[in-house]
Amino acid sequence: MSKKTIIVFSGEYDRLIAAFTIANGALAMDDEVTMFFTFWGLSALRKPGKADVKKSFLQKMFSGMLPHRAETTPISNFNFGGMGRALMKKVMKQGNIMSVTDLMASAREQGVKIIACTMSMDVLGIGKDELIDGIEYAGVATYLAEADEANVNLFI
Amino acid sequence: MSKKTIIVFSGEYDRLIAAFTIANGALAMDDEVTMFFTFWGLSALRKPGKADVKKSFLQKMFSGMLPHRAETTPISNFNFGGMGRALMKKVMKQGNIMSVTDLMASAREQGVKIIACTMSMDVLGIGKDELIDGIEYAGVATYLAEADEANVNLFI
Amino acid sequence: MSKKTIIVFSGEYDRLIAAFTIANGALAMDDEVTMFFTFWGLSALRKPGKADVKKSFLQKMFSGMLPHRAETTPISNFNFGGMGRALMKKVMKQGNIMSVTDLMASAREQGVKIIACTMSMDVLGIGKDELIDGIEYAGVATYLAEADEANVNLFI
Repeated sequence: MSKKTIIVFSGEYDRLIAAFTIANGALAMDDEVTMFFTFWGLSALRKPGKADVKKSFLQKMFSGMLPHRAETTPISNFNFGGMGRALMKKVMKQGNIMSVTDLMASAREQGVKIIACTMSMDVLGIGKDELIDGIEYAGVATYLAEADEANVNLFI
Repeated sequence: MSKKTIIVFSGEYDRLIAAFTIANGALAMDDEVTMFFTFWGLSALRKPGKADVKKSFLQKMFSGMLPHRAETTPISNFNFGGMGRALMKKVMKQGNIMSVTDLMASAREQGVKIIACTMSMDVLGIGKDELIDGIEYAGVATYLAEADEANVNLFI
Repeated sequence: MSKKTIIVFSGEYDRLIAAFTIANGALAMDDEVTMFFTFWGLSALRKPGKADVKKSFLQKMFSGMLPHRAETTPISNFNFGGMGRALMKKVMKQGNIMSVTDLMASAREQGVKIIACTMSMDVLGIGKDELIDGIEYAGVATYLAEADEANVNLFI
């Protein structure tokens, strides 16, 4: 039993699959896993719908452009305005491969620790009310403390 | 002597150079190196030409769009429809810097362990017959077992 | 007190923020930090203005396209020809979040070790005179020696 940390910087659907697949694999082996969501990765933690959060005009622009939940994030190649993601999700369903939503639910059931990066939330104009419940909020010092205890640390 | 693992998620030419350069450097220092190719990184393992593999229509779309070998992958900046990659390769040749094909050959001669991620192969519709010989096929559990033994683990 | 290494492959503004934020955080905790700048990440080390360095035509093309310093690098999402970066920088200023230039200055004051990858400099046609002073020049063997001593190694 050991610890793994994953910085989820990218909000792309395929990279989220990779991050959560590694997390689930490690949790299944009884490892502890801490995922630190920063910048575009925060998309994966957003609640669907609009939240009532006060924002500056510029913050509204960024948070308005960001996908509102994992299932609507683009893929990093051949996205074609979302068509690529839709195709990828269809192939995954045919092959009984879990969606990002399912992978995240599975990781949470197995006790993953999810941390939202507070500095990125400020930069992108994302408030706590817009993110899913049951997560923690912290900065780089917390990430580093976790990473110091881990034997595998990835930046995705 | 220690172990290194590299997840090769991206199939971009410049990132493949980075991955294989690190692998070769470590192998030259008598380290063990395991490279785990997943998603677009699988491009680097494809045999040239068409393979006779059964695919669904959607799988055909993805695997058809994927570059058929490392030397035709795009670069992550200034690719301009392949022109950027061609220029980069020309500069590398003038400077006697090895191509991805040469770097991969060198890594294999030095005993790198190459693993193709079976889940990604399913998602992208890539069959074993389409990939080069002498590699292993496995999932995230195998990657994690390797990473647990390594002192440097990178996600590229 | 331990050591961290960060490979800065990407030259995108948001990824540079991530890299330098982690570096500053670790330095504040009295860790040693080595940042290895390779490929597009070299943009962050460029001096403003033109340098008098001999280049081949192809090298001129690449180095001419590369941003000339950190503050003009694109962001990885919603860049819109630099507008997205400008917006991000404005939001950061409003929130009193440090720019990449400030983060780099802070990291240097705290003793970060910055290494420019000599192979990438050859590929992209970047000479020593074009890069900021007080940095080291080395290849993958030096990176690996540093990584072997570190407990956290990231590829950004």
